[in-house]
Amino acid sequence: MKKINIGIFGATGYTGIELFKILTRHGGANVVFATSESNPGARLSDVLPCPYDITLVKSADAPVADVDVVFSCLPHAASAELCKPVLDAGKKVIDLSADFRLRDPAVYEKWYKHAHPFPQLLSRAVYGLPEVNRSAIRQTDLVGNPGCYPTSVALGALPVLEMGALADGVVISDSKSGVSGAGRKATLATSFVEVNESLAPYNIGHVHRHVPEMEQAMNDAWRGPGKTRVVFTPHLLPISRGMLSTLYMRLTADAAAQDWQAIYQKRFANEPFVRVLPAGQIATIAHANHTNYAAISIHRVDDLLIVVSCIDNLIKGASGQAAQNMNLMFGFDEREGLM
Amino acid sequence: MKKINIGIFGATGYTGIELFKILTRHGGANVVFATSESNPGARLSDVLPCPYDITLVKSADAPVADVDVVFSCLPHAASAELCKPVLDAGKKVIDLSADFRLRDPAVYEKWYKHAHPFPQLLSRAVYGLPEVNRSAIRQTDLVGNPGCYPTSVALGALPVLEMGALADGVVISDSKSGVSGAGRKATLATSFVEVNESLAPYNIGHVHRHVPEMEQAMNDAWRGPGKTRVVFTPHLLPISRGMLSTLYMRLTADAAAQDWQAIYQKRFANEPFVRVLPAGQIATIAHANHTNYAAISIHRVDDLLIVVSCIDNLIKGASGQAAQNMNLMFGFDEREGLM
Amino acid sequence: MKKINIGIFGATGYTGIELFKILTRHGGANVVFATSESNPGARLSDVLPCPYDITLVKSADAPVADVDVVFSCLPHAASAELCKPVLDAGKKVIDLSADFRLRDPAVYEKWYKHAHPFPQLLSRAVYGLPEVNRSAIRQTDLVGNPGCYPTSVALGALPVLEMGALADGVVISDSKSGVSGAGRKATLATSFVEVNESLAPYNIGHVHRHVPEMEQAMNDAWRGPGKTRVVFTPHLLPISRGMLSTLYMRLTADAAAQDWQAIYQKRFANEPFVRVLPAGQIATIAHANHTNYAAISIHRVDDLLIVVSCIDNLIKGASGQAAQNMNLMFGFDEREGLM
Amino acid sequence: MKKINIGIFGATGYTGIELFKILTRHGGANVVFATSESNPGARLSDVLPCPYDITLVKSADAPVADVDVVFSCLPHAASAELCKPVLDAGKKVIDLSADFRLRDPAVYEKWYKHAHPFPQLLSRAVYGLPEVNRSAIRQTDLVGNPGCYPTSVALGALPVLEMGALADGVVISDSKSGVSGAGRKATLATSFVEVNESLAPYNIGHVHRHVPEMEQAMNDAWRGPGKTRVVFTPHLLPISRGMLSTLYMRLTADAAAQDWQAIYQKRFANEPFVRVLPAGQIATIAHANHTNYAAISIHRVDDLLIVVSCIDNLIKGASGQAAQNMNLMFGFDEREGLM
Repeated sequence: MKKINIGIFGATGYTGIELFKILTRHGGANVVFATSESNPGARLSDVLPCPYDITLVKSADAPVADVDVVFSCLPHAASAELCKPVLDAGKKVIDLSADFRLRDPAVYEKWYKHAHPFPQLLSRAVYGLPEVNRSAIRQTDLVGNPGCYPTSVALGALPVLEMGALADGVVISDSKSGVSGAGRKATLATSFVEVNESLAPYNIGHVHRHVPEMEQAMNDAWRGPGKTRVVFTPHLLPISRGMLSTLYMRLTADAAAQDWQAIYQKRFANEPFVRVLPAGQIATIAHANHTNYAAISIHRVDDLLIVVSCIDNLIKGASGQAAQNMNLMFGFDEREGLM
Repeated sequence: MKKINIGIFGATGYTGIELFKILTRHGGANVVFATSESNPGARLSDVLPCPYDITLVKSADAPVADVDVVFSCLPHAASAELCKPVLDAGKKVIDLSADFRLRDPAVYEKWYKHAHPFPQLLSRAVYGLPEVNRSAIRQTDLVGNPGCYPTSVALGALPVLEMGALADGVVISDSKSGVSGAGRKATLATSFVEVNESLAPYNIGHVHRHVPEMEQAMNDAWRGPGKTRVVFTPHLLPISRGMLSTLYMRLTADAAAQDWQAIYQKRFANEPFVRVLPAGQIATIAHANHTNYAAISIHRVDDLLIVVSCIDNLIKGASGQAAQNMNLMFGFDEREGLM
Repeated sequence: MKKINIGIFGATGYTGIELFKILTRHGGANVVFATSESNPGARLSDVLPCPYDITLVKSADAPVADVDVVFSCLPHAASAELCKPVLDAGKKVIDLSADFRLRDPAVYEKWYKHAHPFPQLLSRAVYGLPEVNRSAIRQTDLVGNPGCYPTSVALGALPVLEMGALADGVVISDSKSGVSGAGRKATLATSFVEVNESLAPYNIGHVHRHVPEMEQAMNDAWRGPGKTRVVFTPHLLPISRGMLSTLYMRLTADAAAQDWQAIYQKRFANEPFVRVLPAGQIATIAHANHTNYAAISIHRVDDLLIVVSCIDNLIKGASGQAAQNMNLMFGFDEREGLM
Repeated sequence: MKKINIGIFGATGYTGIELFKILTRHGGANVVFATSESNPGARLSDVLPCPYDITLVKSADAPVADVDVVFSCLPHAASAELCKPVLDAGKKVIDLSADFRLRDPAVYEKWYKHAHPFPQLLSRAVYGLPEVNRSAIRQTDLVGNPGCYPTSVALGALPVLEMGALADGVVISDSKSGVSGAGRKATLATSFVEVNESLAPYNIGHVHRHVPEMEQAMNDAWRGPGKTRVVFTPHLLPISRGMLSTLYMRLTADAAAQDWQAIYQKRFANEPFVRVLPAGQIATIAHANHTNYAAISIHRVDDLLIVVSCIDNLIKGASGQAAQNMNLMFGFDEREGLM
């Protein structure tokens, strides 16, 4: 297998270390550098309980010229600033932050509270959801890797949206996420005793920063009249990783008469990383955790379609999907490193 | 404080032991017997990790004549059979099983798959939700203590139902429960490794046995046209105790213009065990666990009212509410033993 | 029951809120003030998910003149500074910090890295372990409330120490604690994902700050030659609360021939909050959690006595023991508020 | 890479499914059959939440003739019965049960309470701890794969044993294990609510079935006078997987003067799956989980050596070590499928 050279910006967060694990198993990946602003000079294994002894460097000192692609696991804003020179050097970029997901700089500014530093790059970026944008991903040098909540909601609603089957244009997503989705940092809200043995909704309704990304992805797929809208209630689960979205979608009269189990199975039949469970089974977080799969199950009560959509937020919701995108961008088997 | 004598059928399950703890703190409660079919002769502290040394007896050997009231923590069907002679002996009964919750024997038979053994008792029983039936509870000798899911859903939806404010008659309840709700027994589905680090929906839509109980309670409160209906998706959480229901209710145009924070606060202002959180706070399982409170928060997106309703499934959802009912039946302060 | 007036310094930590819960159930306790440096003016229920609406004040503004006793749940150093004027005002103090546990100011300075601000108070303070110092506690106005680890180790080893039965003078304590023992603050080491699904030893051997306190308590009880010493390995458990110490003690030849089950049962027969489990049962954290009991079980292999000693670190290891001390200091039933 | 054909007896337990995952990533492994006595005809993905669609067969119907090696994940006794004909057919066997670990049939009978069905096979079997028996493993056709506790204890104590450095011949192992070590079955003791938020010691001292296996492995390595002995206290942790043993070993006076950090690092320098952490770091379960590594850290107090030894009980403690043994038996890179 051919080898490509890879750099990772921000390797000491949960998505960074997960990406490192995936690339270690990948037959064509050679990690040349991994960066950390807070621990330059240390080995990755000194900073996190893991067996990887690569020595960390500051992002500014990273040998960008030596790599074919850079993954950025940095926070938004910081990520765009560091990815721009990588693109200028003719390298490919897969950005796991929010900086290259939204196409409209005004929407970015509204939700992220600062102007986008390089708005002209937004139209160049491809939204890295392979199930929708596979061919565009193959040809781009800049992928905005999807957020975890948008991945679980978009994949779960996709067949309904593509058939324009919503009666009222609304997808209610009651979503539940493990704590690693909040990143690796010290906060009281994510400290063990506060989270453990509880369940905490937050950002209820239409206020989470992933809302505009979800609605962009939903409207890209939507074939019905007007615009679709999400009502989104995330909940913090007392688990480390994993995400489950329970979607409630009111179907049009025509749509309610159709066989949605069959429609979902057909839509995803050729997708290597979407599993529609057989009728009668129910998707759980255990179906998806530690894999790059989305596990989806279909249920119906009268005209209400209930879809359960599960992913591992760190893999299909972040680093796994990023590696899947890398595989597409460099002509590897899409599943390499991810089985 | 006056003292009453109390018996407990089925003391070695999670609701039984929780009831024992509550009654130990109650200034007017004297537990005379506690039963176990599988461990007669043992002390409660031999069967469960607890400090209570009461010796267990078989239910058939329990000195029913010596008590004023019996709590039954037995499974349905078995419970009715054992409670009938207690009632016949002129004692009061608070039944935590499903046997005296539904008024219609045909509904009972449909959902529990066997004919009710004493259908004539169903009209005599009072549904033990103090926030709705306080005066009837004070006067009855037979309380059907509500299920945990119905308690969380009914309390969360009550003001909307009482104002007839649903546009489509439907309450969507996305509910999440700790594992103790499934009882104390060995099953693979509730074993540690199967439950831990996952989240598992089950009985999706309109098939859980608590559905008819919810709809009975909802329609008792409903002041709008026709009947209301619940769409109910329970999820098994990897925690021991606690329950959170996220309710989605589409309001009529008139209702959508009202101040629901104020309506909820007014409705529950005099309720000792319902806390409507201040605007801006969000209810979590931690607000309710290890207390007899329901913690409720109110949120709105356009015409959709989103209510978060949390209880401890073993306390307000079972043994605490049962003790609250006992307080009402015997003229104690409603809060005795429960603060 | 008579009522006493109470103040709490530092009510918004885990020990503070637990103390508030206990005092709410106590028939003779009237909480007059609760302090918080970071949230003055807020209600306790705004800061933590709880039903207590008392308004918090800064410690400097607390009406110390109105109370009979102050509990301090502040960090060491800060605690002594604030407790001194309370003592000077003629009030009693129960200090949950480390400031009044060690009798020797030099030892305090060595382990806490600063000189004790009021070394003359150290000889006035009584170490608040009722199982050892009950009569002194009844008469003092200043209690140094024991640490959680020292409580579990001292109670577990007490009969062996009092009989001078160690062959080599060493107690090995392999201890495991829930995360609340680390306090309520944002640190990466106690964040959910770092702690969950792991187990982490720390401060291995003879370096934890509780070591000198343990050895002081151990040597106070020791009736053998020379000094005893602890080898202490604490481990951070992925649970919110609870502590278990597994003690390994090599017995002298004479001692090895004795019936240690009987010795332990006799030693603690009149202790209201120590439960020696029957032979054949093994103490677990579930035996002690949410109670003020220490649960202890006795095991032996040849000349090695293995003792399992469990407490709830927030109750018997902190706030419950503090309330037990208050009961002794004010002539209440020792168990009031704690059953 | 060459391909070998593989069968798995008992694929629906936790070790079976973990083995299946490992072999899926292995470049030279072709799984021909996977058996289940309770679910023949079902797909693995119907029985467990996983993406593997292989159809299960009864062990009696397994096409043993088509494979090069069989892994047995069956319980002891059943395992030997089914492995015997596989050996007779000239195939290799890696047995994850206890049936081929002990060399002495009398010891087997004493601890497992039944006579070994094929005692003559015991001398033919090789104990599959590569760090000790690598060359013998390469040449055998029958591996008794080590138990999880013995792996963690033997690796942690190995350098001390090999240097005959114990003063009293005793290794105290205070061990803590995740729940999957108990297997996949419904028992009250491993049900979620019983295990969660607790910690439970069991089989304290010298009574766990892994004791004779540990002592056999320890004495094989022991270079001092007489026999060594383990004092072994296992604890059930509220986590799904992972194992940590804290070893307490009293050193001879000569040994206490040596640099044990250096000794351990040298002993394991060429071992692909043992990581001795740098001085100052402490091994935790997070260092080993989801890897085939043993993570070991070295600490000392006076003449007491304290070693922390961590493994993932399902990988290095079971299926990963089994695959490592397969790699040795068939000439693959020892690390294939395990990085």
